[in-house]
Amino acid sequence: MSLNLAAAALCEQAIADPQLRLASHTIGDARVIDAGIEVEGGLEAGLWLARVCLGDAADVRLVPEDSQRLHSDLAVAVRTDAPRQACLGGQYAGWPVQTDDYFAMGSGPMRMVRGREAVLETLQLQESGPTVVGVLESDTLPTAAAVAAIAAECQTEAKDVTIGVAPSTSLAGTVQVVARSVETAMHKLHECGFDVRNVRSGWGVAPLPPMAKPGDTVAGIGRTNDAILYGGRVTLWVDAPQQDVDAVIERVPSQSSKDHGRPFAEVFKDYGYDFYKVDPLLFSPAVVTIVNLRTGQTRRSGQLASDVLARSFGLEAI
Amino acid sequence: MSLNLAAAALCEQAIADPQLRLASHTIGDARVIDAGIEVEGGLEAGLWLARVCLGDAADVRLVPEDSQRLHSDLAVAVRTDAPRQACLGGQYAGWPVQTDDYFAMGSGPMRMVRGREAVLETLQLQESGPTVVGVLESDTLPTAAAVAAIAAECQTEAKDVTIGVAPSTSLAGTVQVVARSVETAMHKLHECGFDVRNVRSGWGVAPLPPMAKPGDTVAGIGRTNDAILYGGRVTLWVDAPQQDVDAVIERVPSQSSKDHGRPFAEVFKDYGYDFYKVDPLLFSPAVVTIVNLRTGQTRRSGQLASDVLARSFGLEAI
Amino acid sequence: MSLNLAAAALCEQAIADPQLRLASHTIGDARVIDAGIEVEGGLEAGLWLARVCLGDAADVRLVPEDSQRLHSDLAVAVRTDAPRQACLGGQYAGWPVQTDDYFAMGSGPMRMVRGREAVLETLQLQESGPTVVGVLESDTLPTAAAVAAIAAECQTEAKDVTIGVAPSTSLAGTVQVVARSVETAMHKLHECGFDVRNVRSGWGVAPLPPMAKPGDTVAGIGRTNDAILYGGRVTLWVDAPQQDVDAVIERVPSQSSKDHGRPFAEVFKDYGYDFYKVDPLLFSPAVVTIVNLRTGQTRRSGQLASDVLARSFGLEAI
Repeated sequence: MSLNLAAAALCEQAIADPQLRLASHTIGDARVIDAGIEVEGGLEAGLWLARVCLGDAADVRLVPEDSQRLHSDLAVAVRTDAPRQACLGGQYAGWPVQTDDYFAMGSGPMRMVRGREAVLETLQLQESGPTVVGVLESDTLPTAAAVAAIAAECQTEAKDVTIGVAPSTSLAGTVQVVARSVETAMHKLHECGFDVRNVRSGWGVAPLPPMAKPGDTVAGIGRTNDAILYGGRVTLWVDAPQQDVDAVIERVPSQSSKDHGRPFAEVFKDYGYDFYKVDPLLFSPAVVTIVNLRTGQTRRSGQLASDVLARSFGLEAI
Repeated sequence: MSLNLAAAALCEQAIADPQLRLASHTIGDARVIDAGIEVEGGLEAGLWLARVCLGDAADVRLVPEDSQRLHSDLAVAVRTDAPRQACLGGQYAGWPVQTDDYFAMGSGPMRMVRGREAVLETLQLQESGPTVVGVLESDTLPTAAAVAAIAAECQTEAKDVTIGVAPSTSLAGTVQVVARSVETAMHKLHECGFDVRNVRSGWGVAPLPPMAKPGDTVAGIGRTNDAILYGGRVTLWVDAPQQDVDAVIERVPSQSSKDHGRPFAEVFKDYGYDFYKVDPLLFSPAVVTIVNLRTGQTRRSGQLASDVLARSFGLEAI
Repeated sequence: MSLNLAAAALCEQAIADPQLRLASHTIGDARVIDAGIEVEGGLEAGLWLARVCLGDAADVRLVPEDSQRLHSDLAVAVRTDAPRQACLGGQYAGWPVQTDDYFAMGSGPMRMVRGREAVLETLQLQESGPTVVGVLESDTLPTAAAVAAIAAECQTEAKDVTIGVAPSTSLAGTVQVVARSVETAMHKLHECGFDVRNVRSGWGVAPLPPMAKPGDTVAGIGRTNDAILYGGRVTLWVDAPQQDVDAVIERVPSQSSKDHGRPFAEVFKDYGYDFYKVDPLLFSPAVVTIVNLRTGQTRRSGQLASDVLARSFGLEAI
């Protein structure tokens, strides 16, 4: 089961469907699918983009949300029986795609063909080409140099590369980021030293925030992160020694971070917009539940923060 | 992308599926699909009928609802990236199909082939035949004269016409009407002078009411309308000047109407069952949220009315 | 429309999909699909197993749940327009499959080919072979003798038998049992003397409990039953004399039982683990709503029991 091939199949279907409001370009021999830069994209395009990141190994849906509590009428729900491959092998934005003329954070199963990231090596998450598929969060289409760099790092040719791209302030870009509730829990668990190969399945829900103003990337990143940090709740089913769960449960939700409690955009600003100064422990869901299949015991930690969400989403007065 | 062709494809699939409990008739050379008059139909038939109205350009589902607040365990959720075409071009019941021997309100994409309605002309919503598909809300199957009139008004032949039909008191008819939450918000916005071509996507949820007694059309219309007027919440994503949104937001939800606050059937009765005396501003969701993609700002107006729903649904004592 | 053939088609698809984490064995010429004994299975495998029980005549999904009230972030939702066939003909676990070397409760449409159960005979629920499909709740794969007994009782050959199997403590087994909310309401109605041929459609939701420890079958049965008894809510649409509804509505939900109010595992223990001593009226959803299509009237009875669920799920302290 290759996540890159599964994602490529999703791309083939998507570009044939006018309802998704996508545009397919050939840039430096690669196929680049725009989901929100020069085209409108939409909610369905966002679900598609999220599934591409996940290598089609997860179910992603829009579901009703309690707006009185979480300030949105709808949420993004994710379900997977392959959380390690789909979320850490695919969805995690661990590849900074950088050339002289382009920069964007890259996610998607192409990361497993490139390798190089510590998390991929530790977890033995790798795939071989030639077909590779990735997603970029950006306000601009990748340049020919950028797709050439992607191809080279994956040891494949540009013609075998497919890239989906959308700004963090677009409909599609917002949906695909908020689909990362389970991924943030998995990554945080990994950072806390829990052996995530013991996670069997995952379920996560986070409210869909209002999109930020085009070009205001900080607000876009802020709102989408806050949706997970302050409104996301994730359940993971693990098969592990109970002491392994007990050792990490209090640290897994976002409230364990010293930067917790304010909208992400404010935190980011206070650190001079230096991403690396933000406490990495911040990036996880508001509430995390771990059901241990080995012991029949459940642990839950964290809490939703309605007030922070209202401030982040610009909805305090309404 | 023809909504009539997409709806025709949905009809082909549906009549081949016995689980939908439909019956397909040939009336005056047209195909008439009964979803609740002489057959049982059901919840799935209602979802199908709703999708036919929307020209398959929206996702329609049954989702759990909070019965303590909205007096039903389930709701109808609608999501679309083509709200103008699907809701106003397809779903809006703007065609009074009338002959000497028949009357029913008509909806569905066939309206765009007929033209004639002001809303369609203003928004340049038109399609060409020959294939046309529509939906009638009625307790009786259309007559040969009625389908001939539909064909003639669409400048096509009866053999190219497909009509779905269900009473407002049936399972399928109730589902398809309650699927109109986004449509009522779109129509109200249009009536308020907002340029609905600026609406990019829509999401709406409204509780599924208990069906009214067969033949009690007033109660059927009443409960299904009330589900939206007092229990519906809709989010629209627009790309528009903020002042355009601010100018209408307070008027969009149903509470802006002087007839708001009582079950629709009571209002209707007080006006001597004269539809044209009811304040047209009443027909919109209880709560409307407008996210402006251009400015990053969100506006919300309206409120849910649990008590009115209980009265409308006949659930005050329980 | 044969539920056995529909279930067989679901099985063909499932074993071809590696994401479901199933294993297909040939045991005594029969096809046995393991969804959680020697393999991991998962949430998707549980949805598949539930659909097999229901002969693919129902929609089964995982949906968000209010964990503050029902102690789980997700629930299993079931919707069907064929509640009599799907739930009583298929899903009800009415066949004790017993040989010298094996015992498990059997469900699935194979029961309609075997016949013999009073509920099937009364409701004239029968299908003919040769293809038969069933589901067993067990910690071990069925023996060759067990599948031979199934084939013999269905008057077919082992090669025409397909069996899905999962422990009640597994991910898949838990999902498939909690998908029985509508089934328990239907069976209870039948036991109360209501003519369930008058039920047109059903909708049910129950929270997904944490899985019990492997081997602790009592806890597994306990938690999954409690999810329905204390957290399940079901709506049935009937076409029946109002007096028939009024005569049973108070007795349908679980609270009408003298054994209501404690986790099922405690009740079971107090009866010395003798299933036949448990009040059969206990097995039904917490809240039942009956919408009568004939009269337009709705009746609701029962209540959710958050505290009992917390105790059952082992979540009192968290």
